[in-house]
Amino acid sequence: MSTARFRGIVPPIVTPLTADGQVDVPSLERLTHHLVTHGVHGIFVLGSTGEVAYLTDEQRRLAVTTVVAAVGGRVPVMAGVIELTTARVVEQVRMVVEAGVDAVVATAPVYAINDAAEIEDHFRSIAAASDVPVFAYDIPVRVKVKLGHDLLVRLGTEGVLAGVKDSSGDDVGFRRLVAANAAAGSPLALFTGHEVVVDGMLLLGADGVVPGLGNVDAAGYARLWDLAQAGDWAGARREQDRLAALFEIVFQAAGRSGDAAGVGSFKAAVALQGLIDAPTMAFPVRALDGDVADRIEQIVREAGLLAAAPTA
Amino acid sequence: MSTARFRGIVPPIVTPLTADGQVDVPSLERLTHHLVTHGVHGIFVLGSTGEVAYLTDEQRRLAVTTVVAAVGGRVPVMAGVIELTTARVVEQVRMVVEAGVDAVVATAPVYAINDAAEIEDHFRSIAAASDVPVFAYDIPVRVKVKLGHDLLVRLGTEGVLAGVKDSSGDDVGFRRLVAANAAAGSPLALFTGHEVVVDGMLLLGADGVVPGLGNVDAAGYARLWDLAQAGDWAGARREQDRLAALFEIVFQAAGRSGDAAGVGSFKAAVALQGLIDAPTMAFPVRALDGDVADRIEQIVREAGLLAAAPTA
Amino acid sequence: MSTARFRGIVPPIVTPLTADGQVDVPSLERLTHHLVTHGVHGIFVLGSTGEVAYLTDEQRRLAVTTVVAAVGGRVPVMAGVIELTTARVVEQVRMVVEAGVDAVVATAPVYAINDAAEIEDHFRSIAAASDVPVFAYDIPVRVKVKLGHDLLVRLGTEGVLAGVKDSSGDDVGFRRLVAANAAAGSPLALFTGHEVVVDGMLLLGADGVVPGLGNVDAAGYARLWDLAQAGDWAGARREQDRLAALFEIVFQAAGRSGDAAGVGSFKAAVALQGLIDAPTMAFPVRALDGDVADRIEQIVREAGLLAAAPTA
Amino acid sequence: MSTARFRGIVPPIVTPLTADGQVDVPSLERLTHHLVTHGVHGIFVLGSTGEVAYLTDEQRRLAVTTVVAAVGGRVPVMAGVIELTTARVVEQVRMVVEAGVDAVVATAPVYAINDAAEIEDHFRSIAAASDVPVFAYDIPVRVKVKLGHDLLVRLGTEGVLAGVKDSSGDDVGFRRLVAANAAAGSPLALFTGHEVVVDGMLLLGADGVVPGLGNVDAAGYARLWDLAQAGDWAGARREQDRLAALFEIVFQAAGRSGDAAGVGSFKAAVALQGLIDAPTMAFPVRALDGDVADRIEQIVREAGLLAAAPTA
Repeated sequence: MSTARFRGIVPPIVTPLTADGQVDVPSLERLTHHLVTHGVHGIFVLGSTGEVAYLTDEQRRLAVTTVVAAVGGRVPVMAGVIELTTARVVEQVRMVVEAGVDAVVATAPVYAINDAAEIEDHFRSIAAASDVPVFAYDIPVRVKVKLGHDLLVRLGTEGVLAGVKDSSGDDVGFRRLVAANAAAGSPLALFTGHEVVVDGMLLLGADGVVPGLGNVDAAGYARLWDLAQAGDWAGARREQDRLAALFEIVFQAAGRSGDAAGVGSFKAAVALQGLIDAPTMAFPVRALDGDVADRIEQIVREAGLLAAAPTA
Repeated sequence: MSTARFRGIVPPIVTPLTADGQVDVPSLERLTHHLVTHGVHGIFVLGSTGEVAYLTDEQRRLAVTTVVAAVGGRVPVMAGVIELTTARVVEQVRMVVEAGVDAVVATAPVYAINDAAEIEDHFRSIAAASDVPVFAYDIPVRVKVKLGHDLLVRLGTEGVLAGVKDSSGDDVGFRRLVAANAAAGSPLALFTGHEVVVDGMLLLGADGVVPGLGNVDAAGYARLWDLAQAGDWAGARREQDRLAALFEIVFQAAGRSGDAAGVGSFKAAVALQGLIDAPTMAFPVRALDGDVADRIEQIVREAGLLAAAPTA
Repeated sequence: MSTARFRGIVPPIVTPLTADGQVDVPSLERLTHHLVTHGVHGIFVLGSTGEVAYLTDEQRRLAVTTVVAAVGGRVPVMAGVIELTTARVVEQVRMVVEAGVDAVVATAPVYAINDAAEIEDHFRSIAAASDVPVFAYDIPVRVKVKLGHDLLVRLGTEGVLAGVKDSSGDDVGFRRLVAANAAAGSPLALFTGHEVVVDGMLLLGADGVVPGLGNVDAAGYARLWDLAQAGDWAGARREQDRLAALFEIVFQAAGRSGDAAGVGSFKAAVALQGLIDAPTMAFPVRALDGDVADRIEQIVREAGLLAAAPTA
Repeated sequence: MSTARFRGIVPPIVTPLTADGQVDVPSLERLTHHLVTHGVHGIFVLGSTGEVAYLTDEQRRLAVTTVVAAVGGRVPVMAGVIELTTARVVEQVRMVVEAGVDAVVATAPVYAINDAAEIEDHFRSIAAASDVPVFAYDIPVRVKVKLGHDLLVRLGTEGVLAGVKDSSGDDVGFRRLVAANAAAGSPLALFTGHEVVVDGMLLLGADGVVPGLGNVDAAGYARLWDLAQAGDWAGARREQDRLAALFEIVFQAAGRSGDAAGVGSFKAAVALQGLIDAPTMAFPVRALDGDVADRIEQIVREAGLLAAAPTA
């Protein structure tokens, strides 16, 4: 499979859970099907938005096999292999590759305190563990390390990395990465993880987007992508403005944890649309309370994603 | 003067220095004239790039009076009023207003440890100290505080703030600020301070740009602005790509301080073009060494800003 | 087993590895026996110093069963249960309890972004998973969260937590924890993880110490403990000064990663004494080079831990 | 004046203010006299606790001349010279030296982004500006830079620095600084700024203490010092425990800024004792509200610093 397959809108799919914290397979199938039929170009399972950190190995296996089956080859499936360090990541790689994913997405080591040379060896070892393409996941807010563009492009040129998912929030760094990658012949597919600056990031050269908010409005991101591809940047900005207003759902749970407010609001908005049965979060993250849920519902409704009449 | 005057390209002008560390007035006049005649829409004097933190009050006064006189009313002049806390900032406001500037740019308190309510009072007090518009300068890397968009838009709506210079590197925050400002009737003029994502930031709604690199290539930023205003976003991106390659000058002095590598490279590139006499930095920042200077010269030359034949 | 058993010197034992990265069981047995016979009051296996983050589940199981067997009940064995989030930590708890440990040591969730209420539920769930005492491991440099003393003392009072291992480097916070714990009737056993301020921390009320350097000089820490218990604080300081000089081994590998420089130097010093076969680090951490190893050897020799004649 | 004069308890004196924000000279004289007659070994004026960042140059001059006159040579007076960068710090040095202080205390540059070599030149230039001893003030929470012990000891050996005020909260770093200083022949007087670990820091070798809480209970810190000097470490710890309980005043204003909660509580407690007229804070820091003030009063009363009968 060529790296060129990896572009466009690739939402990090949420992992719907039952009331007792198990993977809700029918909901996951339903949401996967919805996303694929509404224009996304790939699915990213077991990402941070997928609550990968909270899932046991068995739950992870169930989530990834469910998504692969539900996608049925219509678009590529990328899987997060999020673990503390190399040997444990490699075990995850084997599991998700056996499940049939088309690419894996790995961070630098977590908890461990490593330098650039060690991180480089880490990615080399992950790449050597399977035949599927490896994306580096740059997310300093969770991993505490910012991946340098020189390291990334070098590993791209050598065939170790196929791409980068950038969730660093460092737009200057991303522009430099885009430029360095272009100068090297574009070995890497470069994805941004920031939902509200997609127009600008596509303009400056991103190859794709991994928007958590894409769970909530896949069609909106597909339109934004198409407008950008057509060079209609004013139109892209209008669609982005609409999506940015929708993104305000993640700021409603003031004072709650990042995972509760962020992933929690995505799950709430997806559940409101009936795409999953319930917005249950993984333990120990508690549900959003009624007042927050009401404000999220209002925002989702104003975005045109719910029927006009109040459902509550 | 209406806030609407404050838009477009407003470079934070460097402060040329003599060998003994005094303000080099003829060089500052020459550079000011060059910038104005090459299409900038305003000048920002006494910013971080202007080494304001290193200058005594007398040196600051000389710099601002020199720039105001050299501009001669052709474009607005904004002045940084960078001090530890409110009472000291207000003294700076009085000085630069007396010198004839059109707006002041103030950060949250420095060194002090204040909360949002105290920062709000700080800006109110600064606004009350003169009749000129006040811009908030959001630069967490130096001030350690990120200004919230709710605070900024509220102060804009009340007429306390006329605009924001965003050097926070938080693109999601900037997009949210743009959206909140638009929803409030656009009381604020919103400027980005990031040189290499100007195309994207203009697309998503920035009103202006304060590019340190604008000292080095004012005409390039003026072209980028005009292309964006004309809706030629592909053209804007091409110009931005060229400027992003030029921006690599700030990364040449690896291992040196942020001020040496950043402001130092701007001064070096401006001096190479003969726009100022020497790239001298304010004490205790040491000059860039010959090897770094050579690489900067090569980058500036490749950007087409020097004659073809080597000058060294 | 009463909490009162958990006090004194409890080194976080390194995990010796073979050349191909497997647990070196004979070396681990030898080192365990050495520590116990040189006066330590407990062993902490699978801590950060034990490279727990780098080990697979099978390797962890082998390490903990080896240590439990080698200790043979002479002192308590505490085991780290270091995983991303609650469900995965609970799996580790079951494994180490089955292996026979006397207490478990857990951090707040890693990679996940949780608030105080979620972290509290996390610890409650861990405590409910077994009958052994639970220690909270406060190590912001790896986990990014500082545990509040109010949370810790409340969980101590309720019987959820039996103690705290403080590796936060926040001496003011530790003093406040000591005071709050005393005011609550001392439900918690409070351990400091900082090797070079043990005299001061014991003076101000620490119940125990988890010194990585205790792998290298167990007898020294045992003496320091005994002097402090006897109220000979001047003597304690002299012993601490000697150990602080020995601790300089961790600063020899300048420019290397934290794990390479820290754990790497402990392993090097332990191997020099013949207590383990080799200083091999877990992948991807590379060995310390010869020059660094030489300086470490010199420091260890000056501390009187090697024979007078050079062994190299 | 020999560096040996600088040791013991040296409180960073608060700057009492009138209702309109001017220096309250009679209160400052009264507090100074109280501190000197209750056993302190020096006074530190214009420190962070003295709200130096908030004062204009004229206010600073008035504060320092008032303190120098009130002390009348009974103990040394140290003065903070807190400004953005070197040239501005040197202006402060000239002012306070003219006012008659015995030493100056300077941080690394603020707002500016400098490297170690530049910071070293900064301190050299400050030292060259006068004949009085220079102390380096290590306070990363305000300055963002941690001063390395190698830099500090080297500058001590060369006679540039006479001492260090450590407010870094890094106890391991302080122990290493103590050890490196001792190895170099103790050129530096080493002061800790942390009020609640004074027993431990004196045990491990601190030469003095700069306790903000010393404004509130100078006699307590003097007793703690005397007990430590006499080698009565158990007694020192008991006194420290009492002072640590008193220090809880700084944690009463939850949700307020660091300066409001910290300096505000010191001023409130000092005013309660009648040592200054009012707890007014410098603009824009607002007064602590009644509920917080009540809790502070209760804590101060429990520490035995107020008459038994309620004064309110």
